[in-house]
This record gives sequence, C-alpha cells and structure tokens, in this order.
Amino acid sequence: MIDAVDLTAKLVKCPSVTPEEGGALVLLEQLLSDAGFACTRVDRGGISNLYARWGDKGHARTFGFNGHTDVVPIGRIEDWQHDPFGAEIEDGFMYGRGTTDMKSGVAAFAAAAIDFVTQTPPDGAVVLAITGDEEADALDGTVALLDWMQSEGEQMSVCLVGEPTSPDHMGQMMKIGRRGSLSAWFTVGGQQGHAAYPHRALNPLPAIARLMDRLASHELDSGTEHFDASTLAVVTIDTGNPATNVIPAKTSGTVNIRFNDAHTGADLSDWLRAEAAKIDAEFGTTTDVQIKISGESFLTPPGALSDLIAGAVKAETGIAPELSTTGGTSDARFVKDHCPVVEFGLVGKTMHAVDERVEVAQISQLKAIYSRILSDYFA
Amino acid sequence: MIDAVDLTAKLVKCPSVTPEEGGALVLLEQLLSDAGFACTRVDRGGISNLYARWGDKGHARTFGFNGHTDVVPIGRIEDWQHDPFGAEIEDGFMYGRGTTDMKSGVAAFAAAAIDFVTQTPPDGAVVLAITGDEEADALDGTVALLDWMQSEGEQMSVCLVGEPTSPDHMGQMMKIGRRGSLSAWFTVGGQQGHAAYPHRALNPLPAIARLMDRLASHELDSGTEHFDASTLAVVTIDTGNPATNVIPAKTSGTVNIRFNDAHTGADLSDWLRAEAAKIDAEFGTTTDVQIKISGESFLTPPGALSDLIAGAVKAETGIAPELSTTGGTSDARFVKDHCPVVEFGLVGKTMHAVDERVEVAQISQLKAIYSRILSDYFA
Ligand SMILES: [Zn+2]
Ligand SMILES: [Zn+2]
Repeated sequence: MIDAVDLTAKLVKCPSVTPEEGGALVLLEQLLSDAGFACTRVDRGGISNLYARWGDKGHARTFGFNGHTDVVPIGRIEDWQHDPFGAEIEDGFMYGRGTTDMKSGVAAFAAAAIDFVTQTPPDGAVVLAITGDEEADALDGTVALLDWMQSEGEQMSVCLVGEPTSPDHMGQMMKIGRRGSLSAWFTVGGQQGHAAYPHRALNPLPAIARLMDRLASHELDSGTEHFDASTLAVVTIDTGNPATNVIPAKTSGTVNIRFNDAHTGADLSDWLRAEAAKIDAEFGTTTDVQIKISGESFLTPPGALSDLIAGAVKAETGIAPELSTTGGTSDARFVKDHCPVVEFGLVGKTMHAVDERVEVAQISQLKAIYSRILSDYFA
Repeated sequence: MIDAVDLTAKLVKCPSVTPEEGGALVLLEQLLSDAGFACTRVDRGGISNLYARWGDKGHARTFGFNGHTDVVPIGRIEDWQHDPFGAEIEDGFMYGRGTTDMKSGVAAFAAAAIDFVTQTPPDGAVVLAITGDEEADALDGTVALLDWMQSEGEQMSVCLVGEPTSPDHMGQMMKIGRRGSLSAWFTVGGQQGHAAYPHRALNPLPAIARLMDRLASHELDSGTEHFDASTLAVVTIDTGNPATNVIPAKTSGTVNIRFNDAHTGADLSDWLRAEAAKIDAEFGTTTDVQIKISGESFLTPPGALSDLIAGAVKAETGIAPELSTTGGTSDARFVKDHCPVVEFGLVGKTMHAVDERVEVAQISQLKAIYSRILSDYFA
C-alpha cells in the first residue's frame, strides 16, 4: 500500500519549478519501477517527462493518467507563512507549492495505480504520462510524451487528467472539455508628428481605440450545448509616449480569446486579421497582427468515460459531479487528439497562490476515487 | 549704434538653458541701463526676468517688446557640427542654441530700441519685457513680469513678441493669434481578474478604447474667421500589463487639444469630463480626469497694430506678411490679457534643432523692421 499523503509530501519537497525536474520524476520512476511499471524518461528540450506502463504495450484496454510535477514559482518568499517546499502539515492542511496543483493529484493516481496492479492485476494496461512542463509553454511536456508514444506504438484507450477541477468542495465538478485559448498582438503603425499639426501626422491611437472597441463589443457566440459563450478580453494597450505635444508613430494592443467548440483558432485568426485590415482601410494605418493559439477547444461528449468517473465520484463522496467545460486550458487539449479524455481532481482554490495548501483528507479521498475508477474500468 | 549681430553672438555665448540666466540678462541690463533705460530685475521662483523702460511710466503711448533669453537644452553634443554656445559664423550663418529662438530677436529689438530712443527720443515710452522662462513651464517668466507691472502701475499700450514667425522666408508671416492648448489625462479604473473569466472582472480597456475613439472622432469645430479648426490628438494609451491571462485593474490615456476662439479651456474641460462620465455610465468603470490648460486661445483682430507691423515689414522686405494664427503656444497668450499683442520675428526653421542657426543678414533686417515699427508707431 502506497501512502498518497506521504508521497505528496515527498513530491512537494522536490523544488520542481518549471523547467527544473527537482527530483520529483526520479522519485516517481523509482517507485513505479519497483512496482513493475516499465518506465521511460521522455526528456525533450531540457524538460523531463516520465512515461510508465504496467501491462502489455498497446493493449485495447489501457487506462491512462496524465499529470504534471512542475510547479509555478513561489513569488515573494516573504509573503509565505509556510516553507513553500516544506510540506508542513498544520490543522489538517499540508502547505507548499504544488500541494494542490498538482503533486497531490499525481501522488493519488500513482498510489492508486500501484496498489491496483499489485493487489488485483487487471487484464489490460495502466499508463502514467507525467510531465515536467505544464505550467510554462508546455511545448516539450505532454506533447513530447504523446509524440513519443505514437512513434513507439504506445497508447491509452481513455485518459484521466488529475488536475484540480472543483471550485469549492470535493466531488463537485469534473471537466469534459475546455475552451480553447488564443492571444493576438496588434501593432498599429502610423506617422509621428507634432500634436499641434495632426493633419501632418497619422495617429495610430484612434485606430487602435476603434479596433479594440470593436473586438471587445463583438459577441462571438452565445454558448453551445456544453460550453459557455466564448469571451474576448483586451488585456493591454500600450504606447509609451510621455510627450503631450507628440503624436506617436506606433501603438500596440493585445487580446486574449477563450473560445468554445463553435470556433477554431484558425477561424478566429482570420476574423482578427480581417478586423485589423478594416481598420487600416478606414484610418490608413498599417497593422501587424501576431497570433498564438495556445490550445483549441476540446470536448469529450458525455458518455462511457464521464459515466465511469461520475459513478466513482458519487460512490466515494455521495456527490454527482457537474460535467463542466469551464476554466482555463490544461494538457487535456493535447490528449484529446489521441483518446477520450476527462479531468477530475481536487478542489483548486489555492492553485498558484501564496501558502498553497491541500486538505490532507482530500488526498486519501482522491486516491480512493482513482482506485475505484480503475476497478470499475477493468471490471 | 548697437550692432545686433554682435549682440546676438554675445547672447548666444551665454549658456542660458532654462532655468539658467547664463549672463544674458545681466548683459542686456547693462546695455539698456547705459542707454538710459530704467531696468528692474523681476526674478521669481528661481527664474531671472528683466524689465526695462525708457520714458515715462504709464505713458499712454508705450510700445512694448516681449521675448526670452532662455533656450532649450542642446541634446547630444555629439550631434552638433558647431559649438552650441560658440556663435560661430560660417557661410553667412551664425550657429548656436538660441540663434533663431530667440536671442537674435531679443538682440534685434534691444538694438532697435536703444538706437531709436537715443537718436530720435519719442514722446512716449518703450518697454522691454524679457524673460528667462519661456521654454519650460513659463510659470515665473512673462507672467511674473506682467504681475509685477500691474502691481507697479507699469503698462504697455501695445506689445510685439519677437518670436520666429515665418516658416520659410523673412517677412512671410506674422501671428495675430494662437490656438489654446490643453492636455487631459484619463485613468480608467475597473476590477482586475483572470482573462478566462471576464464576467468576474471589470475590464477598463474597452472603456478607454471607446472613450478615445469618441474623443478622436468628434469634430470640435470647422474653423473660425481667423483660425483653423481645433484639433484633438490622442497622444498615448498605456496599461503595462504583460500577462495575456490577466485583465488589468487600470489603464490610462492622454489627449492634447489645440483650440481656437470657438472654445475656452473651461468649456472643453466640461466636455471631456462629461464624455468620461458617459463612458463610466456605459461600462461601470471609474474614470479620473486630470486637465491642464497650458493656454487659452488669443486673437488680436486685424487692426491698427497688425497694420503697423505689416506696413513696416512690407516697407523693409517688399512682402505683405500673412496674418496667421497657426503654430504652438507663445507668451503672447499671457500678454493678450493686458494689451493688444502680435508676433513677428525671423524664419523659425531650425528652432530647437541640432545646429540651430540664423542667416546673419536676417538679424540686421529684423532690427531694421523693428526700428521702422518704432518710428511709425511714434510718428
Ligand atoms: Zn496544474
Ligand atoms: Zn521661443
């Protein structure tokens, strides 16, 4: 029997701020190897990743877990009341960076998987795809694992991502999809000049003001069957001109779009470029548009996999989890191209916050839920 | 006979970058005292100013000249081909900071005034109000002189400001008015939040975008009898938010208005505040508005004074100067509250530029014009 609380504490003590491995994957690899998992380090671009499989490669019934051991930086150490890498337990809470997001989740599924294959070896396979690059650019993390798996004939039949999913209490919510995310950087160029003679200049500021007003006022959609409405947020406009008598040559603005399954990153990119072109036609400006699609939206429609997870959650907590598509992006956006994927984990309240903490009882509860999911899947 | 070219060179050699007196006013005070002018140093707030009067105080026929001896900084010395304080003469040009703006103008009117009162003492008075604070905030310059004059019963019947006024060639243009100038700083406050959950935040950026679009799109007027249309330039919008997943709490923007005699600074301030209030009502934001009126517009309608100046210019150059109200602000904006004021001086091409220079012949020509103006005025 693996103690998930103890394993969480050991992982929290590894200072694995992206891109540092910090000892976390080394520790897991040892533990999983000892339990009979075939482990492969799939490192890429200075990032450490761990692939562990129990059972036959390519088995038609392969249950996969996905998660990350990297954590976001601690911020200002003075702001913490607890050692960010101490895993101190006080009043039923364990404190430290990653206690919620998501070393407890990794510890819970690793412990559940090891105990399950040890105690009741199934006719099938269990895969753990654990990355050290989720919090940063995620270019060499889960994507590297999935690329490697494909090239090696490795696969998962279904996948559960162990990220925190509930806003307030355990069992409240699972994620069957997530909106996509896209950022666009606009640089509007005009012609510098003296503020007293605006007709001799070409001011880019009225152009960016109208562009941003139009983008922010546009209703992308009013929501779809499983998704809330897509949103667009103007996140910054900057010029950096301190002189009130000067019309600047350039200004820039950035928008971030969270989009549902009514859109694709490509369609939205076309729309953004067309809006910029319209503004240039109206003002005579020259607008450069740079777009980064962080992830397309994904949806695993309610079905066998979500029923399996919901059933186990209900059995362990008495609560039927809501099937949600809210929240930011996660690595499920990569996994969805390979197999059905859903997300279920802890309460996410203190993710990325100072004095991040997890209720110790929730770790054991999460392990119990993951264990039941495995039994039910292979039943 | 005072040599205006020699006097210009002596003044250029005084390093009188605002707020430094640099020896320029001391030199003029000596020269004017020697010629029988009653001189008073009207220093205020660390700024030196010089008031010089020939003739009786408060005489009903008092011709005033106004100008400044302070100069803008030289910028990067490496960029100059000539000593900025050397007054070097090469190929008919004198080089140095202030050669155009406006030590040659001050030298020309000082020389003209001294020669005039010495050779043909008029029945009247000649006043020179020379400041060391025109290029910076102008809080303790011409305003200090005018304040002091009022409290002492000193006055000018009419005033000629000797700033450069012609864009290309001598005699081309005089100024009978100038637009006013006003800057407004808007800070729009909302509520910070995550870009994925815009409904939980209150984004100030769409609000400032619409505000700036509206202000920039508004036609203030289409010009008046003597003025071009008023203009509004958005000069900057800044937020400083580097995170694409964060909706910022605050953003700010600045506009600069150059306004004609259809407006006052107060009316425009009311309008700007009302537009900000409308935006706040639409978006729920809280907008702070800070306004600085650098100067109201002024107009000395065509009449006796402009006829006098135009006649003298025509006689000396063969050119009838255009009566213009274009360009930035000048100290005429202060003088206009006390007496009719117009501006006439050199070609302004190299004002504030590297290797600022004046055509040496123009200095003598300007002195001749100023001399004729004095004779004609007292004739
Ligand atoms: Zn996470
Ligand atoms: Zn000047």
